[in-house]
Amino acid sequence: MDELLKLRNDIDAIDAQIVELFEKRMAVSESVAAYKEKIGKDVLDSDREREKIGKVRELAHSEFNAQGVEALFNQLMTISRMRQYMLISGQSSEYSGFMPVSGMAVKAREGAAAEDVPFLRMPFDKGTKVVYSGVPGAYGHQAMLGYFGPEVDCFNVATFRECMDAIKHGDARYGVLPIENSSTGIITDVYDLMGVYDNYIVGEYVVRVSHALLACPGASMEDIKTVYSHPQGLLQCRSFLSGKNWQQISLNNTAAAAKKVRDEKDKTQAAVASEMAAGFYGLEVLASKINDLNNNSTRFIIIQNRREYLKEANQISICFELPHASGTLYNILSHFIFNGLNMNRIESRPIPGKKWQYRFFVDFDGCLSQRQVRNALTGIASETDNFRILGNYIHVE
Amino acid sequence: MDELLKLRNDIDAIDAQIVELFEKRMAVSESVAAYKEKIGKDVLDSDREREKIGKVRELAHSEFNAQGVEALFNQLMTISRMRQYMLISGQSSEYSGFMPVSGMAVKAREGAAAEDVPFLRMPFDKGTKVVYSGVPGAYGHQAMLGYFGPEVDCFNVATFRECMDAIKHGDARYGVLPIENSSTGIITDVYDLMGVYDNYIVGEYVVRVSHALLACPGASMEDIKTVYSHPQGLLQCRSFLSGKNWQQISLNNTAAAAKKVRDEKDKTQAAVASEMAAGFYGLEVLASKINDLNNNSTRFIIIQNRREYLKEANQISICFELPHASGTLYNILSHFIFNGLNMNRIESRPIPGKKWQYRFFVDFDGCLSQRQVRNALTGIASETDNFRILGNYIHVE
Repeated sequence: MDELLKLRNDIDAIDAQIVELFEKRMAVSESVAAYKEKIGKDVLDSDREREKIGKVRELAHSEFNAQGVEALFNQLMTISRMRQYMLISGQSSEYSGFMPVSGMAVKAREGAAAEDVPFLRMPFDKGTKVVYSGVPGAYGHQAMLGYFGPEVDCFNVATFRECMDAIKHGDARYGVLPIENSSTGIITDVYDLMGVYDNYIVGEYVVRVSHALLACPGASMEDIKTVYSHPQGLLQCRSFLSGKNWQQISLNNTAAAAKKVRDEKDKTQAAVASEMAAGFYGLEVLASKINDLNNNSTRFIIIQNRREYLKEANQISICFELPHASGTLYNILSHFIFNGLNMNRIESRPIPGKKWQYRFFVDFDGCLSQRQVRNALTGIASETDNFRILGNYIHVE
Repeated sequence: MDELLKLRNDIDAIDAQIVELFEKRMAVSESVAAYKEKIGKDVLDSDREREKIGKVRELAHSEFNAQGVEALFNQLMTISRMRQYMLISGQSSEYSGFMPVSGMAVKAREGAAAEDVPFLRMPFDKGTKVVYSGVPGAYGHQAMLGYFGPEVDCFNVATFRECMDAIKHGDARYGVLPIENSSTGIITDVYDLMGVYDNYIVGEYVVRVSHALLACPGASMEDIKTVYSHPQGLLQCRSFLSGKNWQQISLNNTAAAAKKVRDEKDKTQAAVASEMAAGFYGLEVLASKINDLNNNSTRFIIIQNRREYLKEANQISICFELPHASGTLYNILSHFIFNGLNMNRIESRPIPGKKWQYRFFVDFDGCLSQRQVRNALTGIASETDNFRILGNYIHVE
């Protein structure tokens, strides 16, 4: 090990010098920022950066080292830009309209619900209008009740788009939409709508999908001959249903199945739906937790049409488009890493009308009041097309 | 501008010294690689890297500089690891079983098809068995014909999974599956199956979705009262259909609509389907190119159960799982960038049974015979879980 130790000592000595030079470079960079601010020049000077990469490559003595130096200086220049944004920001920025919700009383969770983790909510009271997409008794309704409790003035719409429109036009203060299922992945239609509507995410809520077998009051397991549900509902209860010799019929959603059983008052019929649907439609629970996998959950977002966030918000969602160029995505990601921001998700979706071009959606840890977040976003906003902050809210695991 | 010029000269002087130190560090790194190889030690030593980051942070004189130095040294250590992988690789690697298709006659495109760009194919002849998912006359069939021509011995299966199984069990040499639509995005079920089957992508084919109005021979536009198609088909021809006052009925796929019109021989019925379906079902084309957007295409993959690739292959697909840790994805991406590899796509999909954990799919430019590709993959394989190369093939834009 002595040989390795000696080599590592050599490296340590080199590294101490690199750190010294790095700090010198940052000091000069600060003077550049002051100068640029004085003459109103942009922080990002792509021509100068390209020229610099060419020069340092020429100083290297092998192709490998030229590539290494290129990567290193791309990183160095990103850091310099960060420093410059940091010094210049504060006066004005892309997202200055995005203001904290000041002086609001953050409420702990109220009302009966299926989750036992208390967390913080946006302000609402008895008269607050809330819209959710889907039918009463379905999981969207359950998410609405879980987040807002039973006291708000809620209504439902059939489609995600109608929910977006209701928020846009102010027909409701808040909207509730599914964004991801832990088994099937993201709900792409909702991503696409978030990309084009000027609505903002202000909260998240996770509903654990737990199916029950529901039937008319007085019916018993022996009476059942037919079972109704959404195709996914039937699939998720395969073990329970196998060997039952019941006819399985698919409907549009689990709540519609419960409604059908209620309406037809036939003791040979059952529905696979949530226990909440049982209460809602006056049905009896013949068996609960009948789904195969016990960790299937759906994540919902709470949206509104105003740019607000809680002081305690800990996740930011943004979207942007990128030009077709090698390394562009890497440059964007470096803004997160250098600012110490943990990226939780990256998704790409086709941009309508632009063949094989994509809009990116990134979720990362942080609050818009944090300096490092503002630095990263200033950089990303200046290096992407159609950059938008989609929201800042409390993330639920 | 003199002031800026002076500052930039200062930076240039600092940078020349940084390049010099970088090259010194790489030289020592080479000795470390030789030593590690001698004693059989892994290139990646996470403890040493963490310790190094701690040390260089302490050398910095501000929190900003400590963060900057951390980012810079993460990059430097990544480059050092690259150099070490490069020196050690060649003897053995994760993907040594992935061999070029040697001495094969690469054929130019044959047969009548809808594309006019000639490109290269995997070997096949009259007796080659090919399976596609979907029904005859649908776009999957069209992709199969486009890539292989009409001479191969083809059959169809109803589901993506059956197609995967047919390839896995050797019932067919090649399989054809849709992977992405330019308007609706990726086909997630096919991604998920690629993640769990040991099948390999050996080709791509893009079918331009172009709908036509098909009817029985002898029927004219004035006869039509009802039109059948897949819901997407009807939606995509909204402009053409609006004002026609025809009843619109949705079916499972566009080819089923054509088949229904053929079977029922009713001159008041029409189908929205491909022109190929017209030929296949003996129907007449009353109107062609009736879809609103003229740039809707579907990308198909060609799969087989052997690890092979063409010498001319220019895109690699991989998948891997990542531990939940800040910066991990960034480290993975740096392998691409430093090796000069352009990333075309990154997708994440939930891992079944692991709540809110994801499998990543990355497509990037390159051929497995290239040194820089082998370097990047050696690094990524050692830093991720369940790393797999999904294929190396000719990418079609």
